[in-house]
Amino acid sequence: MASEAIEKLIVALNRLPGIGAKSARRLTLEMLTWDTDEVRELADLMVDVKTRVRRCSICFNLTEIEPCSVCSDTRRDRSSVMVIDFIGDLLAFERTGLYRGLYHVLDGRISPLDGIGPEDLNISQLLHRLRQGEIREVILANGPTVEGDATAQYLSQCLTPFEVSVTQIARGLPVGSDLALADQVTLSRALEGRREY
Amino acid sequence: MASEAIEKLIVALNRLPGIGAKSARRLTLEMLTWDTDEVRELADLMVDVKTRVRRCSICFNLTEIEPCSVCSDTRRDRSSVMVIDFIGDLLAFERTGLYRGLYHVLDGRISPLDGIGPEDLNISQLLHRLRQGEIREVILANGPTVEGDATAQYLSQCLTPFEVSVTQIARGLPVGSDLALADQVTLSRALEGRREY
Repeated sequence: MASEAIEKLIVALNRLPGIGAKSARRLTLEMLTWDTDEVRELADLMVDVKTRVRRCSICFNLTEIEPCSVCSDTRRDRSSVMVIDFIGDLLAFERTGLYRGLYHVLDGRISPLDGIGPEDLNISQLLHRLRQGEIREVILANGPTVEGDATAQYLSQCLTPFEVSVTQIARGLPVGSDLALADQVTLSRALEGRREY
Repeated sequence: MASEAIEKLIVALNRLPGIGAKSARRLTLEMLTWDTDEVRELADLMVDVKTRVRRCSICFNLTEIEPCSVCSDTRRDRSSVMVIDFIGDLLAFERTGLYRGLYHVLDGRISPLDGIGPEDLNISQLLHRLRQGEIREVILANGPTVEGDATAQYLSQCLTPFEVSVTQIARGLPVGSDLALADQVTLSRALEGRREY
């Protein structure tokens, strides 16, 4: 490569998830066609996000204010807490606009193979919230994987001492999917979870 | 979205080629897991590339020095110039390590539908190089598309006054491809371009 600066940028972009060597080259060549001010703006936004965005001390949502806009929104239902594995899951639920309760981000799933145990997740902070007594329902929205299931099972045990209703979001066929192509486990969960029509 | 900084970064990343809304969200969440120093390093590399990288005044290659490392390399064959449409094509040829001559980047292809005429390409600069008298062969390596063909044809007309051999890189079946799946035009070009075995 003709330029060390180009080479370095390609290597750095290549570290991002989903950005292979070819994409990194393409992005670098694209940025070279932008105005310097445009590239500087993007670079500043990247640093901005790191310096301005924090985790909410209550629910571990991403936020610029403390507590986050969900936790401080008085119109939301403070008796319901949805437990999710990752920030991205919270954002996905917020995009639906359907859930009006609070969240709790665990920041992971129990996974012995990866050396991730319950003590690595934000579980003690969840139990601390429950001890305040305001919460009436805990909705388990862990990912539909072996690790998500293990996490949900562990949580349900932790929650037994509390007078809260513990529910789990439905497993079933994704809307718009092809029943013939669904895997056996999804089909069996869809059957188990059948409801009065 | 909980944070304006996050929202702005997603919108900015979304402007990059091949980065959709989902990828932009994913990249933003990934950067939030990096150390601030790592994000700052990537941001600095982006600005660096814009401030340090220029176009070579002779061949329009990307370079930090003037003229570029190809044009100033005395071991390269200065009697041969390969004409290519875009910088990315030059980098692709350099990666093969097989071509030892010089380049000339046109920065586009003739495309009347997009309002791109010969005057928008670096053609006069190529003719200026030819008038120096050192060049003996011009290799047309324009892209194998209608626009690339139109550009090659236009160039070949411009080159008739010069005592240079004008060649074009071969059109044919890409190595490893399936003959049964090749399109008719590629097959007919492969047949036309057949060589003694």
